[in-house]
This record gives sequence, C-alpha cells and structure tokens, in this order.
Amino acid sequence: MELLLEGKRVAENIKKNFEARIKTLKQQKNKTPYVAVLGITGDEASLTYVKRIEKNCEKYGIQCMIKIAQNQEEFIQNFKQIKQKKEITGIMFQQPLPKKIAELINQIPPEKDIEGVSDLSMGKLFMGQENSNIPCTSKAVIEILDFYKIDLRGKNIVVVGRSNVVGKPLIPQLLNRDATITICHSKTKNIKEILKQADIIIMAIGKAKFLKKEMIKQGAILIDVGINFEEGKMVGDIDFEDVKEKAFAVTPVPGGVGIVTNILLIDNIITSVEQL
Amino acid sequence: MELLLEGKRVAENIKKNFEARIKTLKQQKNKTPYVAVLGITGDEASLTYVKRIEKNCEKYGIQCMIKIAQNQEEFIQNFKQIKQKKEITGIMFQQPLPKKIAELINQIPPEKDIEGVSDLSMGKLFMGQENSNIPCTSKAVIEILDFYKIDLRGKNIVVVGRSNVVGKPLIPQLLNRDATITICHSKTKNIKEILKQADIIIMAIGKAKFLKKEMIKQGAILIDVGINFEEGKMVGDIDFEDVKEKAFAVTPVPGGVGIVTNILLIDNIITSVEQL
Repeated sequence: MELLLEGKRVAENIKKNFEARIKTLKQQKNKTPYVAVLGITGDEASLTYVKRIEKNCEKYGIQCMIKIAQNQEEFIQNFKQIKQKKEITGIMFQQPLPKKIAELINQIPPEKDIEGVSDLSMGKLFMGQENSNIPCTSKAVIEILDFYKIDLRGKNIVVVGRSNVVGKPLIPQLLNRDATITICHSKTKNIKEILKQADIIIMAIGKAKFLKKEMIKQGAILIDVGINFEEGKMVGDIDFEDVKEKAFAVTPVPGGVGIVTNILLIDNIITSVEQL
Repeated sequence: MELLLEGKRVAENIKKNFEARIKTLKQQKNKTPYVAVLGITGDEASLTYVKRIEKNCEKYGIQCMIKIAQNQEEFIQNFKQIKQKKEITGIMFQQPLPKKIAELINQIPPEKDIEGVSDLSMGKLFMGQENSNIPCTSKAVIEILDFYKIDLRGKNIVVVGRSNVVGKPLIPQLLNRDATITICHSKTKNIKEILKQADIIIMAIGKAKFLKKEMIKQGAILIDVGINFEEGKMVGDIDFEDVKEKAFAVTPVPGGVGIVTNILLIDNIITSVEQL
C-alpha cells in the first residue's frame, strides 16, 4: 500500500472552518444552527449514534434537541411540534424506523433535510446538483477521494451495494466526476470478475471482510463504507490486512469513512443555515 | 438474430386499454385527461414533436392545449395561467428550452408532471418507486424488455449515455429488476472492452451507427434509444445491419423505442388522472 486514506485528516480539513462559519452566521444572519433529532425507543445501537451526534453538536456550539418517543403516535406528535419551531434549522430521523414513520421524512421542509434523505433532495442530487444536502456517508466517500486528489475521470469504479443512503446517492456524484460506474449487489452473478477490473472499489454491503486480495487488481484504490462487528471488534467490508499489500490505497475501519461521515453531518447542518 | 424487438407490438399492448381507461375516468371521476404543452418558437424539430403529441392526444380523446410563446416572458405568463387551470391534468414543456425557463419544470404540480422530469419525480424514482411518472424514453426501454420477457435479474447491463431523461432514470428501474449496471459515457476510456462483456446494451448517446458487431458478445440483447439522421434517413446508435447476425435481439430504428415512448406519454397522461 502506498497510501493510507485517513478519515481523520479529511475530517480535520472539513471541520477547521466550522467555528468561523458558525460565528459568521450569528453575526450576519443572526442565526444559530439548531438541529432536532427524532427517534423511537428500542434500538440501542442507533441511540448510541444519536448520543454521538449530540456530543458532536455540543463541541461546535450547535444547538441540538433529541426527542425519543415511546411509540409511533408520540413520534408523530413530536414531529408536528418540531416542524412548527422556526428556530430549528435542521431535522433528522434516527434510523431504522417503522415504515409509516419513515415516510414522514418527505414532510421535512426541504431546506431542513440535513441528511438529504427526502425524495426531493435525492432528485436534486440525481439531476446533477451538489449544492443541496447529500446523504453524508456517500458524500464522505467523495470527500476522501477529493482530499487525496484521486482523479476519477474515466476511471472504472465499482460500487458494491445499492442502498438509498450510500450506493444510489454515490452514482450521480461519481458521474459528475466523469467516472465509469458499475453497481453490484446481492444479485450480481460474476462479482469477482467485475471487481478484478476496477480501478476503484467502494464497498457498502455490510459483510465483514468480504473483499480479499484475489478479488482486486494490483494497485486498486479501495474505499470501505462497511461497519461490522467481529468478536466485538469493528471491521469493514474489506479485509484490510489481506489487501493492504496489493492495493494502492485503502481506507481503514475504524478511522476511514465513518469519521468523515460524522463531520459531514455537522457540515450539512451548518451549510443548510448558510443557504437560507 | 433470433428476435426483432418490435416497438409496435409493445405499443399495441399498452394502448389497447386506453379507451376503456379514459371511459372509466369519465364515469367514475368525471375527469377527462387534459394536457398542456408549453413551448417557445424557434426549434423546428421540437415543433414537429409537439404536433405529433397533439395528434396522438386527439386520437385517444385526450384534450390538448398547445401554447407556443414568442419569447421567455410570454412563456412565463402562459405557464402561470396554465398552472391555475384546474381542468388541466398534465403539463409538459417542449424541449430544449433556455435554462431560466427550463427551471420552471420544478414548479409543475407533482401530480401533473406527466414527463417525470421534475426533481421530485426523479427523486421518487430513485428511491425505488415506480408508480410515479417516469421519463417516457427510459420507461419505454423497460417496457420492451418486459414485453419480450427478458429476465434482467443478475444480468450485466451496460447503459451508454448518462442524460437526465434516459441514462439516469434507467438506473433505478434496472436496479429494481436486480440487474448489475454499468454506466458509460463520453469520458469512458475502455468502452469496447466493457461493451463486449454486456448481456444487454442500451445505447443512448446520439451517435449514428456507433455500435458495431465487434463491440458486442455473441447473443447480446441490444436496445437502441438513438435517433439520428444520415442522408435524410433515420438511424439509431446501433449499426443494425452490422450487428443483426451476432446479436440475439435488437430494437430497430425506426420502429423500436420511439413508438413505445410516444405511447407511454399518453399512458402517463392517463395514469396521472387515475392517481388523482
């Protein structure tokens, strides 16, 4: 491996202006970023995630309101109240949510959809716009590639995974950068053959250490979006130890895409106030 | 070639219920499909297209209002008026349009966006919904493949062209059918190599007779979205005569995707009233 793609360095670069940007917002617009996170009790892992958001917000002087409902009805009530509060500049839902509740995402006012998960945000992105809110994980992949000056033009990029929050939103961003893209998933038949031809591979399937050295070509660039747990240890979709000699560059897990994703959520929160 | 993919047969199958569907709408909802087409004078080819829509609407008893403005201001005025008319169930813009005007597309009420070209329609499609209005040309490709019972699951499909009206909207529709997709375009470096591995190729780049037999594998299925003119004769992006022995199936031009596209516009016009 020639290059360890360190999420920390990318994140540092994004967050270095947070303080100044928030200060400017207060001075010029008399606005403070203020995010509301809505959830339902139950999922422990996702509660941990919410706590981390709260902590991150606190760090940068962003107001944060967490509303965890006991049931769906309470969630709906909370959402109604939050929508009416003008001082709240960003709204996000803790995932996963029951389907009925999840559909409320499209009722988040477009300018407050800081996760970029509504139909409208997704549509804007697919129409080629990158100034709207973009799902943070997909954007983190692009930020890492951009930071390390990896030219995507004409490159064969294989995205493994077709989720609405990673695989799909990556497509327009990669097309904007003139990459040739292949999207693989669980129904792909000849995935090893396809991976072998890729200049860049983006793994987002949630299968621990799936990608091995015999599946990649010499000098490939590998981005690992996966977060899996193996014997209590966090591992990605890439078998880092196995591929590290053959690949040109790899993102580690932890320390790769995840850190950048967290910082980009804060970035989206600030940006959406800047764009008001 | 084993199979000529005839657009006419697919179109016949779609339009056979038009009359009954329109009758039902009148009886059950007291609604008549009524489409408004807004344009600006200038582009002759696009005017011909508008005339064809008018004729098609007439054939099926769909009301159609054509408003061709002399300039941008008049267009904006026309659009304002049309938006206020409750009896109009579908609105479409004649393309191409100046950028300032083209952006008004997002002000078409979602349920009247019969071409599926707004950010919101595109977003819904990318989130996996196929019950909303879908850009007709992209849907025509799918209708042809469906009609001829071509299974897409796990197939390697190469889409050549990344436009907002064909290449991009094809992506979610093909993903919904479990295909593995590669999107190529003008910046793709090794297009011949990529095409050679495709089970199905969808050409949408507007280059007359670009695809030759040496670029495809034996038995490939070829869909031609291209409409080009060579010495006054309409030809596709595929060199039909050259590939016809080697391919398993091909859509002709004319007589392929185009006919189905025209019928799907009528289908979208009727469907959007059914969904009201």
